[in-house]
Amino acid sequence: MSAKPGAGIRFAVIGVDHAHIHGQMRLMLDAGAECAGYAAFDPATDGVSAEAAAFREAWSGITVHADARALLADTTIALVVCSIRPACRAGLAAAVLGAGKDLMLDKPLAVSTTDLEAIVRLQRQTGRIVSVDYSERLECAAMVKADALVRDGAVGRVIQTIGMGPHLIRKAARPDWFFRRADYGGIIVDIGSHQIDHMLHFTGVRDAEILSATVANYANPDQPELEDFGEVQLLAGDRHGFFRVDWMTPAGLGTWGDGRFFILGDAGTIEVRKVVDPAGRPGGDHLILVTGSDTRYVDCSDVRPVYGEQLCRDVRDRTETAMSQDHVFQVSRLALQAQAQARRLGHLQQAFVPAGRTDQPVRATGV
Amino acid sequence: MSAKPGAGIRFAVIGVDHAHIHGQMRLMLDAGAECAGYAAFDPATDGVSAEAAAFREAWSGITVHADARALLADTTIALVVCSIRPACRAGLAAAVLGAGKDLMLDKPLAVSTTDLEAIVRLQRQTGRIVSVDYSERLECAAMVKADALVRDGAVGRVIQTIGMGPHLIRKAARPDWFFRRADYGGIIVDIGSHQIDHMLHFTGVRDAEILSATVANYANPDQPELEDFGEVQLLAGDRHGFFRVDWMTPAGLGTWGDGRFFILGDAGTIEVRKVVDPAGRPGGDHLILVTGSDTRYVDCSDVRPVYGEQLCRDVRDRTETAMSQDHVFQVSRLALQAQAQARRLGHLQQAFVPAGRTDQPVRATGV
Repeated sequence: MSAKPGAGIRFAVIGVDHAHIHGQMRLMLDAGAECAGYAAFDPATDGVSAEAAAFREAWSGITVHADARALLADTTIALVVCSIRPACRAGLAAAVLGAGKDLMLDKPLAVSTTDLEAIVRLQRQTGRIVSVDYSERLECAAMVKADALVRDGAVGRVIQTIGMGPHLIRKAARPDWFFRRADYGGIIVDIGSHQIDHMLHFTGVRDAEILSATVANYANPDQPELEDFGEVQLLAGDRHGFFRVDWMTPAGLGTWGDGRFFILGDAGTIEVRKVVDPAGRPGGDHLILVTGSDTRYVDCSDVRPVYGEQLCRDVRDRTETAMSQDHVFQVSRLALQAQAQARRLGHLQQAFVPAGRTDQPVRATGV
Repeated sequence: MSAKPGAGIRFAVIGVDHAHIHGQMRLMLDAGAECAGYAAFDPATDGVSAEAAAFREAWSGITVHADARALLADTTIALVVCSIRPACRAGLAAAVLGAGKDLMLDKPLAVSTTDLEAIVRLQRQTGRIVSVDYSERLECAAMVKADALVRDGAVGRVIQTIGMGPHLIRKAARPDWFFRRADYGGIIVDIGSHQIDHMLHFTGVRDAEILSATVANYANPDQPELEDFGEVQLLAGDRHGFFRVDWMTPAGLGTWGDGRFFILGDAGTIEVRKVVDPAGRPGGDHLILVTGSDTRYVDCSDVRPVYGEQLCRDVRDRTETAMSQDHVFQVSRLALQAQAQARRLGHLQQAFVPAGRTDQPVRATGV
């Protein structure tokens, strides 16, 4: 039996502000990589987050370092894995890439074009990998299966994708930054990034035109910077994409969101019920394939995510099999662009103006 | 037991070019109305259609008249029911309304603004009812149930509707006019009318802004006037709507189309699988309701369409309970507007120019 793709690859976790980190850990460990330790990026912020505490408790075998610099200086560590709050990513990327390490983050890559372009420059200067774990595609077995089916030509040429990304707000459990627009980046940047990743990936295009974009706050007037609804329509030549994202999941669903993904091909269709099949089959990862010959429920129970293994190979071989570097940046650019031009409705102020902070001058964010 | 709402109401069928007529017949007969006879509007066109022949065979007890004028002159007939080819509707409406009768058609009401405005003028002059049986809402038990649930506040305030209206093309069985743009009106006017009806109805708005509209021919290069794909994004203040319509249903689905309708409310969601629950429960009319308290599959087997009964009452009482006259015209206006401004992609010519006909001068249609 050959070694796992991650054998010999040591990674560190630096910066945990979101539970996404658990999925990122599983991807890397399942691929055979070794976790060399954890540190906060800033002990005063991501060091004291509830998510960081939960991470340390859940992965209690992992060495906790008081100072991230020890991990960044360790030349045996090839990759840093991170779920730090979105507004801190440019700073973290500078430290990680500057230390000659690759970086894997949860979404979103960046909350402003200033941040994004800083990361792009650093990546080009250093040649290190900056990868984003779009978990709603890369950790979802049914989406991995959909990808394989589309590549095999099961639905012919992909004409359109429609995504619905509802999320449960769990308002009381969210950190302060969750509600601050400058910190989370807006709903299209935040949870819409998944959907833009899906559209570009499944239609096989590099970029798209934004036909329309809207964000709103309809159900949370007490949090006027929170966007709880967003929708975007994209067109890339003859490939179409529409998505809605929201923080409206009704509590009676019993899970965090009825994420759906519909692929229209010229020879068939795929529907993925990512998380739940409401009032239907138990569990997640439901895939329905309709072709010229039949309608099939496709069992995805034996499908394993491949992103962690691909990323490990890329780290070792300096390839781009998990996703192209260009895709990572294009998803972020497109999300920021849609966010910036989005019509703002409901309880949101008509234009987003970042609030003044005590630690820096008030300025436009560039978003 | 009280009499049915249609008791004493006699209607005629004039002009059959589409199998929709069977559903229209059932609505009226189930409501207790009486069919006084059938005639072609133009014996040379709708008189010789395959659908007219199938209608005469299916409803063999109904008297066939050689000349529609006999039915139009019969003052005991209150209403004319019709599924004539779309381009003939203005002419038929003129005859029916001019004869002092109400009119119920399948969709679309009109294929050009010229036709629509002629019908609007006639309706205002005569005060007769012009009603459109949006069968994908009005004949679908699960959509009727969704309507009742929304009115009862089951999902709170409706924020967005998403509709998918795929259709099976059955190319060999279609009449010539099905493929001629000037005759069927374009895919947004034709099958998109259902979706615009749904969006306006369920969000409770009178009109909407068209944020984007696209039509294309992706899979039928041999029929360059056929639009086999269309998508529209609508906004009405703080109410959102998106839909896709297409002629791409894969043959393996086993029925004409996996029509879906998603309602996002600020307190719950509804999904309707109108025709089929692919790889799921048998039959049609599936409704899934998620609220703050639970997730429920709602049985719609005891739900009956009410449109026929409401229309019969409206005919007798001169009310607008089945749908407002304004709604009928607004759906048609919005469909024509979206169709006219739609980006044209794929095998379609860049701008639609009606082909010259031998029986009339070449002219712009006004669409």
